[in-house]
Amino acid sequence: MFLSKYFLPIVKDTPKDAQIISHRLMLRSGMIKQDSAGIYSWLPLGQRVLKKISSIIVNEQNNAGAHEILMPTIQSAELWRESGRYDDYGLEMLRIKDRHDRDILYGPTNEEMITDIFRSHIKSYRGLPLNLYHIQWKFRDEIRPRFGVMRGREFLMKDAYSFDLDQNSSFTSYNKMFISYLKIFKKLGLTALPMEADTGPIGGDKSHEFIILADTGESKVFCDRKWLNLSVDIDNINYEKDLEQNVSLFTSLYAATDEKHDPTKIDPSNLIETRGIEVGHIFHFGTKYSESMGAKVTLPDGSLSPVFMGSYGIGVSRLVGAIIESSHDDAGIIWPETVAPFDLCIVNLAVGNELCDEMSLSVYNFLKGRNKEILYDDTKESAGSKLAKMDLIGIPFQIIIGPRLAKDNKYEIKNRSNGEKHTVDFNNLINLVNL
Amino acid sequence: MFLSKYFLPIVKDTPKDAQIISHRLMLRSGMIKQDSAGIYSWLPLGQRVLKKISSIIVNEQNNAGAHEILMPTIQSAELWRESGRYDDYGLEMLRIKDRHDRDILYGPTNEEMITDIFRSHIKSYRGLPLNLYHIQWKFRDEIRPRFGVMRGREFLMKDAYSFDLDQNSSFTSYNKMFISYLKIFKKLGLTALPMEADTGPIGGDKSHEFIILADTGESKVFCDRKWLNLSVDIDNINYEKDLEQNVSLFTSLYAATDEKHDPTKIDPSNLIETRGIEVGHIFHFGTKYSESMGAKVTLPDGSLSPVFMGSYGIGVSRLVGAIIESSHDDAGIIWPETVAPFDLCIVNLAVGNELCDEMSLSVYNFLKGRNKEILYDDTKESAGSKLAKMDLIGIPFQIIIGPRLAKDNKYEIKNRSNGEKHTVDFNNLINLVNL
Repeated sequence: MFLSKYFLPIVKDTPKDAQIISHRLMLRSGMIKQDSAGIYSWLPLGQRVLKKISSIIVNEQNNAGAHEILMPTIQSAELWRESGRYDDYGLEMLRIKDRHDRDILYGPTNEEMITDIFRSHIKSYRGLPLNLYHIQWKFRDEIRPRFGVMRGREFLMKDAYSFDLDQNSSFTSYNKMFISYLKIFKKLGLTALPMEADTGPIGGDKSHEFIILADTGESKVFCDRKWLNLSVDIDNINYEKDLEQNVSLFTSLYAATDEKHDPTKIDPSNLIETRGIEVGHIFHFGTKYSESMGAKVTLPDGSLSPVFMGSYGIGVSRLVGAIIESSHDDAGIIWPETVAPFDLCIVNLAVGNELCDEMSLSVYNFLKGRNKEILYDDTKESAGSKLAKMDLIGIPFQIIIGPRLAKDNKYEIKNRSNGEKHTVDFNNLINLVNL
Repeated sequence: MFLSKYFLPIVKDTPKDAQIISHRLMLRSGMIKQDSAGIYSWLPLGQRVLKKISSIIVNEQNNAGAHEILMPTIQSAELWRESGRYDDYGLEMLRIKDRHDRDILYGPTNEEMITDIFRSHIKSYRGLPLNLYHIQWKFRDEIRPRFGVMRGREFLMKDAYSFDLDQNSSFTSYNKMFISYLKIFKKLGLTALPMEADTGPIGGDKSHEFIILADTGESKVFCDRKWLNLSVDIDNINYEKDLEQNVSLFTSLYAATDEKHDPTKIDPSNLIETRGIEVGHIFHFGTKYSESMGAKVTLPDGSLSPVFMGSYGIGVSRLVGAIIESSHDDAGIIWPETVAPFDLCIVNLAVGNELCDEMSLSVYNFLKGRNKEILYDDTKESAGSKLAKMDLIGIPFQIIIGPRLAKDNKYEIKNRSNGEKHTVDFNNLINLVNL
């Protein structure tokens, strides 16, 4: 991508109403634009990050045996009356009348709709177990939306729903999602701590929040210091075995949010206090919705049994903010490589200088041929402004091309994360960026 | 994907309220489920097709120099009051009050919002030309939604918006989208005819609809028979040149919908009458929105000028139905390879027979290793039911494994599109499916 043709509207002044660092950095780097309270447009740079995160989640949920579907944003109020939640949900539910004066709503979550899909199609125990998920926009009419995409009104959520024959197999499905979440957050470059949680309006008997550590996080977190050096090979946990053992390993280590913290449960010498951000929440609620909505399957003996269910959410748009909260410095964002909007950028410090233009273009074309995503700054801004912009938007590697080094056919390559710079020739460069 | 673990809820009875073939086939093959009037959930098979179509559109719009963004579904009524369309739009607009009693709406289209994004960030002619697009759900509260996803209320649309300095460059942007649309529909396996069209509520001075030919299409279409043998190498048209010449080639050939048909404009001996479905619509409306909403840029001489705009829509969810209308037979759907939910399927006619199981698995694993998407029917249904199901869901190639041929290490391969069957050994099979 040539920056001169790209839409990257960098905002120079720090936005006044943005209280937290991720909100400020997302506005400054032209990732989002606020359209109205708690509602944002994702500009090209932001949209790229959102897509990368979604794609990591999709891959890992598929690996865990879940099937992707796509439910609509608008739901009928009838379904919510069946479960009894229509009146319970309160003002956060965006209630709408259509042209025929029917009650509809913008889905804040999908337990009712997925239960309806299930009961319409699956009639026998042979259709179990089943896990269906989608990534779709939700709406919660927060009274005071704030913190940018961290607490917006329209937000992108991945929500999965498991269906099982009995409590035991339902716990196995829960454990698969538990492990899948650890894998996902690790791939996103995050350290996520699962913590026992309240079930709230979703209901149920068992629930964990996944909290990522970030100094600027919204809530206080207490945990065992062993968390920081935990060396479990999460990537290699097999979904078909060892699940309970692995889940136990994680749930046995102390970790709690402020509200749940109980100092008697941990040796003070092992306790550390830090801050965190909730990015996922999983629930086991058994037959709560299947009973009220009649989602039953026939058993081998001919009798009918309500299915056991769980639901599993990840805040996809919120994660963009959360990743920035956990990975930035004074100069701007530091993207983990897996979610960076571009793999590399090329900064041509002397556009118009024949040698610099030629070297820039040749490295651009070479890397494009290797399927790297590259942002090439071919604009005529000052060197200082160009380098500051690339630090701000946080692309993992900067290839800097200026007249002095160009004469010797050398490039400077900078690692955004640790700040290290190396002067290299073309072959070294290629080796470095392929790491 | 193993069918025994997949969620493919085939519906045996022909759904009564589905009037058109694509709606019937989508329900029968478990691609969608109706949630309420004109609102559908996309089940795994349908979701796969929707994603493939979206991805083809994204690639081709990016090639044409457009940048992907993502605007929200909920918009403020304020923006629509600025353009004057809030009161004009009528009952199809889903009007909502939020908890603070503010007027908001579910976007039926995004001219206002994109104009607001533009005017907030681009102040100089140097930011032009620019083309931004997104693929997002829209809502139009149709009084009588029908024909399944072909005329739903919540529907997925790709909408692009171009911004230019003057009418000439704006026409160039229009032509790029015109050519990009021809490339997209061709990649989707469709023959699309551009036709001059009315601009309707979008407004403007220039507009084309893209109509694909389908015997069961919604509207009568009249066109020159030369269309059917037109051999233009669309794939190789370069966006940087020859655009006007190519667009003229297409617009000079007669093609019109029923309402626009003028028999005096074509030699009757060249006229053919057929049926078609609208799948795209592009508009040039100049300064309609930029004037009313103050989207102006500074020119080199310091003066201010409103930008020239166009908008370019493709009905993504509608296309799923449209492709089926144009490609099916009595047995079911015939997917073009580019949008098929799976590349191939394997039908094991004798699950439990050691040889058949082993051959099925080995070809499954081999093809998976080559990044093919495969649906493996490992269920114990009857051979007839299995083969009928694969014909119904329309996967391009069926690899059929039964005890008789298995003894000689042979497979049967069936091409869903032309019905041809071949008995082949493993090496032939690999060669055939790699074509």
